[in-house]
Amino acid sequence: MKKFIQKDLLSTQPLKCVVVGASGYAGAQLVSLIGQHPLLKLVGLAVSESSEYLNVQFKDVYPEYALGDTSQVDDKFHAYSELVGQEKWKSVDVVFLATPHEWSAAHVPEILAQNKVVIDLSGAFRLKCPETFQSFYQFPHPGTDFNSVMHYGLPELRGVNLAGVAGVAVAGCYPTAAILSIAPLAELGLIAGPPVINAVSGVSGAGRKSTIKNSFCEVSLQAYGIDQHRHSPEIEQALDHDVIFTPHLGNYKRGILSTSVVPVKHQVTQQWLEDEYQSYYSQAPLVDVVTESPRLQDVVHTPKIRVFPNAIKNGHFVEVVSVIDNLMKGAASSAIQCLNLQQNWPIQLGLIPQNLIAMHLEEVA
Amino acid sequence: MKKFIQKDLLSTQPLKCVVVGASGYAGAQLVSLIGQHPLLKLVGLAVSESSEYLNVQFKDVYPEYALGDTSQVDDKFHAYSELVGQEKWKSVDVVFLATPHEWSAAHVPEILAQNKVVIDLSGAFRLKCPETFQSFYQFPHPGTDFNSVMHYGLPELRGVNLAGVAGVAVAGCYPTAAILSIAPLAELGLIAGPPVINAVSGVSGAGRKSTIKNSFCEVSLQAYGIDQHRHSPEIEQALDHDVIFTPHLGNYKRGILSTSVVPVKHQVTQQWLEDEYQSYYSQAPLVDVVTESPRLQDVVHTPKIRVFPNAIKNGHFVEVVSVIDNLMKGAASSAIQCLNLQQNWPIQLGLIPQNLIAMHLEEVA
Amino acid sequence: MKKFIQKDLLSTQPLKCVVVGASGYAGAQLVSLIGQHPLLKLVGLAVSESSEYLNVQFKDVYPEYALGDTSQVDDKFHAYSELVGQEKWKSVDVVFLATPHEWSAAHVPEILAQNKVVIDLSGAFRLKCPETFQSFYQFPHPGTDFNSVMHYGLPELRGVNLAGVAGVAVAGCYPTAAILSIAPLAELGLIAGPPVINAVSGVSGAGRKSTIKNSFCEVSLQAYGIDQHRHSPEIEQALDHDVIFTPHLGNYKRGILSTSVVPVKHQVTQQWLEDEYQSYYSQAPLVDVVTESPRLQDVVHTPKIRVFPNAIKNGHFVEVVSVIDNLMKGAASSAIQCLNLQQNWPIQLGLIPQNLIAMHLEEVA
Amino acid sequence: MKKFIQKDLLSTQPLKCVVVGASGYAGAQLVSLIGQHPLLKLVGLAVSESSEYLNVQFKDVYPEYALGDTSQVDDKFHAYSELVGQEKWKSVDVVFLATPHEWSAAHVPEILAQNKVVIDLSGAFRLKCPETFQSFYQFPHPGTDFNSVMHYGLPELRGVNLAGVAGVAVAGCYPTAAILSIAPLAELGLIAGPPVINAVSGVSGAGRKSTIKNSFCEVSLQAYGIDQHRHSPEIEQALDHDVIFTPHLGNYKRGILSTSVVPVKHQVTQQWLEDEYQSYYSQAPLVDVVTESPRLQDVVHTPKIRVFPNAIKNGHFVEVVSVIDNLMKGAASSAIQCLNLQQNWPIQLGLIPQNLIAMHLEEVA
Repeated sequence: MKKFIQKDLLSTQPLKCVVVGASGYAGAQLVSLIGQHPLLKLVGLAVSESSEYLNVQFKDVYPEYALGDTSQVDDKFHAYSELVGQEKWKSVDVVFLATPHEWSAAHVPEILAQNKVVIDLSGAFRLKCPETFQSFYQFPHPGTDFNSVMHYGLPELRGVNLAGVAGVAVAGCYPTAAILSIAPLAELGLIAGPPVINAVSGVSGAGRKSTIKNSFCEVSLQAYGIDQHRHSPEIEQALDHDVIFTPHLGNYKRGILSTSVVPVKHQVTQQWLEDEYQSYYSQAPLVDVVTESPRLQDVVHTPKIRVFPNAIKNGHFVEVVSVIDNLMKGAASSAIQCLNLQQNWPIQLGLIPQNLIAMHLEEVA
Repeated sequence: MKKFIQKDLLSTQPLKCVVVGASGYAGAQLVSLIGQHPLLKLVGLAVSESSEYLNVQFKDVYPEYALGDTSQVDDKFHAYSELVGQEKWKSVDVVFLATPHEWSAAHVPEILAQNKVVIDLSGAFRLKCPETFQSFYQFPHPGTDFNSVMHYGLPELRGVNLAGVAGVAVAGCYPTAAILSIAPLAELGLIAGPPVINAVSGVSGAGRKSTIKNSFCEVSLQAYGIDQHRHSPEIEQALDHDVIFTPHLGNYKRGILSTSVVPVKHQVTQQWLEDEYQSYYSQAPLVDVVTESPRLQDVVHTPKIRVFPNAIKNGHFVEVVSVIDNLMKGAASSAIQCLNLQQNWPIQLGLIPQNLIAMHLEEVA
Repeated sequence: MKKFIQKDLLSTQPLKCVVVGASGYAGAQLVSLIGQHPLLKLVGLAVSESSEYLNVQFKDVYPEYALGDTSQVDDKFHAYSELVGQEKWKSVDVVFLATPHEWSAAHVPEILAQNKVVIDLSGAFRLKCPETFQSFYQFPHPGTDFNSVMHYGLPELRGVNLAGVAGVAVAGCYPTAAILSIAPLAELGLIAGPPVINAVSGVSGAGRKSTIKNSFCEVSLQAYGIDQHRHSPEIEQALDHDVIFTPHLGNYKRGILSTSVVPVKHQVTQQWLEDEYQSYYSQAPLVDVVTESPRLQDVVHTPKIRVFPNAIKNGHFVEVVSVIDNLMKGAASSAIQCLNLQQNWPIQLGLIPQNLIAMHLEEVA
Repeated sequence: MKKFIQKDLLSTQPLKCVVVGASGYAGAQLVSLIGQHPLLKLVGLAVSESSEYLNVQFKDVYPEYALGDTSQVDDKFHAYSELVGQEKWKSVDVVFLATPHEWSAAHVPEILAQNKVVIDLSGAFRLKCPETFQSFYQFPHPGTDFNSVMHYGLPELRGVNLAGVAGVAVAGCYPTAAILSIAPLAELGLIAGPPVINAVSGVSGAGRKSTIKNSFCEVSLQAYGIDQHRHSPEIEQALDHDVIFTPHLGNYKRGILSTSVVPVKHQVTQQWLEDEYQSYYSQAPLVDVVTESPRLQDVVHTPKIRVFPNAIKNGHFVEVVSVIDNLMKGAASSAIQCLNLQQNWPIQLGLIPQNLIAMHLEEVA
């Protein structure tokens, strides 16, 4: 932790940020996190032109995300087109998109063209292969030119290097839990057959909208998207291996628990396995490799992932349970991490309150 | 219980029933109860002309309400207008309405005119006073002529006599819990000031529809309708006294818990109070007067109400907690009770499975 | 359904039943089901000598399971040793055991010796292999002599024949969901590798007891018993194949959802698969083979299982989702089914209220 | 907000804090809050001598309350007696007690004698009257001498002045919600009769312990402690008026919703009422007087209270709904506020992350 209490950070000018899609669950969580990040400054909230929240104040829709004194901040939801026309838009440094896939696909080029950093939480730029994309997203791939511009953002995945990139396609919620569960095995070339990944997500994963499926009395544990969920190819791309992924809707608001069973090429021991996982995540302060089965509530409202690897069936299979908050590590806090990396800031900056304080006290001491 | 194991009931021909509004939560519960009532036979399910469930089978929407072998029953949802045109409509004896207030107000006259018994679960015919009705329901009272035709149906309220009536306006869910909590005091003329009634209802009380308010992630304990809920005048009419009633939305699917505080005209003791309540409900097999604080789950999925009276503040106030299942005692099972009374059948017929069996075994023994 | 509306059943004398372990969740559910079964009569409830419920009335602990008029029934919890000493014990026909494994292992021999039918819900007699049993249950196997006396009771599993047997070891809750998901594939000899079975159970599966793990604030979705749950060998014995089974604790009271991924020996199509499952369960009125992903609440409080088979990965794998109520199909209603089969009664007798009524009406018509 | 961004605060040495009872829900929340407060430093965690958590690390019991890098902090639970014997105890400035009433009553005198500030979250020192105390707490009052030493701590109640006091008896959870709902009316002398206060609390209010009542399957909305809850006299003492208070257990983990109906001495208008409440709380940044019915989730995990006053029954009654997080505003964050006031720091210091950041940025700018 010490390493980021650096004098130079303290003299950094905060980046000016806008969140588009700020009225949704992931967008609102992002607004809250930007509000407590020491080097980010929120300058505008955008929603779609037809939103019921136009001109409504953020604090009236999300009172639980107190922004402190808003008397000098514009916390109203604006239409994106209106915000873009405002004078302050010119000085915006970073644009976070918590928008539909189609919207991101259509608007990212114009935002990149204005030299603003794009942190996109949609799925528009995650998949490299146009055919796979079209098949799972039902609209054309934004173009392979973007494969080298919009970088896949799963902060703790080895090989991810976001420093100075133009844009980031932040990993999906299920893929975050699944990929970080299996990545150490993939890197070791141990995967012997398709991992079977079962995951249960809270209802907030479906977004803020009223459908009969999300209606309180209709929510009840249920599998969905069997063999056809769009997060399958995303996981496969990251692991470079076929997977069998089944998402489930759970009867709670937040959190994903993912259970993965992976056949491995040679027998492993529990100790070796734990060592490998500890080693893979040794530089990852927001990943906890644990030795007891994690519960959802261990991580809900936090930016952490807990990963619990097990050598089973005499070491011929590995089973990994992981838990995240789908709106935090599965979306908003991961987006903040991506920006931290893009800026060469410490990966957890602004996400662990204690770090702020430690930094502060070091200064004043 | 003995009293209804009567030979003559066993030779009764079942009544042919239709449920209009059968796709809603109360309507579907009613379908299930009709299905297990020994003297009722379901012959048709109706929904609105614009329903998404037209021609869908009941068992596909409500698999939890198994109707047994449906191979010889028409369990499809039909448009009301279509059902009315079918040959079998003519022989229908009873029409249950789990419909919007406006629909009931508009259609009850024509159904009564066909000499079918109407059991209406809406609020259209509950209030006697046209001005009060208009003010709380925002459309004109169906007419005071109906005050003597559509009888208020709260089965265990003293003075309710439904034998042979043309139609019944079944009591509302909150009023059922509140009125049965206070009725013994009202009858004794003990109420000294406005009872303060707080009640919490499960989300199914809002009906089967998708709104942002009923969306899973948005449901969180909350008061609503303060000083203006349409169940207030219904409670006041039954108790003949002003009340302060506050409903709350709870984070669960079924059940109402109601807590009433009543100032009383003269000091009472706990023993006297319990005796009075026991006496008032001595002929009511579905009312349990209890001496420990009831929980919602004691009654959920049952046709019972549990009533817990307390002499407090040295006997100068009475506090009564009661619990019901809002879809059962608060709607569907109460509707069945009303029909039982209308037919001079035992009040709990078809609602307590054991009674059926006892009756059956007595026969075969 | 028609087939069981048989005159001869109507003249059958009800069997006298006792439930040992009647204060637990499965035991109490069983009491409720016996109460509504037309050919069973409850004559006594037993609990352990040290139970806090000794001499308490059933209706005060489980008011939701109304037994109707209890004025002429002994609904008190008695110590087993006391009940055995009562005169009425001699005429008891059936003893249901919802007891700890060790208790069942110790007492079943003496009950069998009295020529009473034993329906044991514990795990004491489910596993044939003494070594496996000892390893998973941590006490010695009751003896292989019992392998031919206590029959494994999973009513819809092909090959199960309970007619006239002395005793039944009712299947476990997770195994019921898992085995019925995969049995059709096992029978066809299609299983190509260890099925990966993930299941989530409601908290009632852990029984009625207060532990910090079951404490309301501590319950949160979590895997447990990885690679070592005692239901693994039970599933493996029934399928005659190795499996990878992972149970999870869910944040709800009742229900199990099980998701199984099975590699198959040759490619299958969706249509072929559905046909095979429909065929396998064609004589099973309580199994619904469905074509949409089932939800827990479709079956909670019912004796049904819903099974949803899918050909995935181009037909090289089969994925099956199934849902049950863990206290009903996973315990109590399955026990009733076992007794029905033991008596050569219809498998669903007493479990579908409508059937009772139909039977009744046929008689009186 | 501006007013507390004071240079002098930035040069303040942090106070060294200990939490006794740190393994309970309120204690652990307190540990988390101390961890993010800029002027507090946690130096020890104590539990009872017989605790199962002795020598366990805080992060293993409460992973959701990440303390950041704990490599240089002692985050183990120690026996109180052991902690007191350690060298570092001498330099401790503040002792927070999240302990049983009896423990606090017995140990506060010795801690005060060591000139450490005591912030007591138990009920031991809240009631002034020895007879009332004895009657509701079932053990003797700690002595009226303490009435002027241990000050009642409800930060936003007018008349509370904690600057420089020796110790604070932090208000109870229900009283916080109830008193802040009614205090403006009490100050105006408007209360015309006993307020009727209904409140529903999450299960965490019962503390971290395993009882059958708190067992997951047994929790179901229920009133308790009718006419005899120990928070009644606490509310009455603060309002100087008799009240009728009924607590309920709700089926959720955190939060209290309180609904109060108050007869008033003269007719009030809605506008006047809102103005009075706004005025009463004009200096209270953590109190939101709102004009729409608040939901629990608006405040859960926050240090805020939302208060919603309504003129009802033509202004002859006032009904006030308020919501808090029982572990935050009802316990831990309120305790931090009390210490802030005791130290003459801004009331919300350390509780609104944004403030920290604003302070920080002002410095570096």
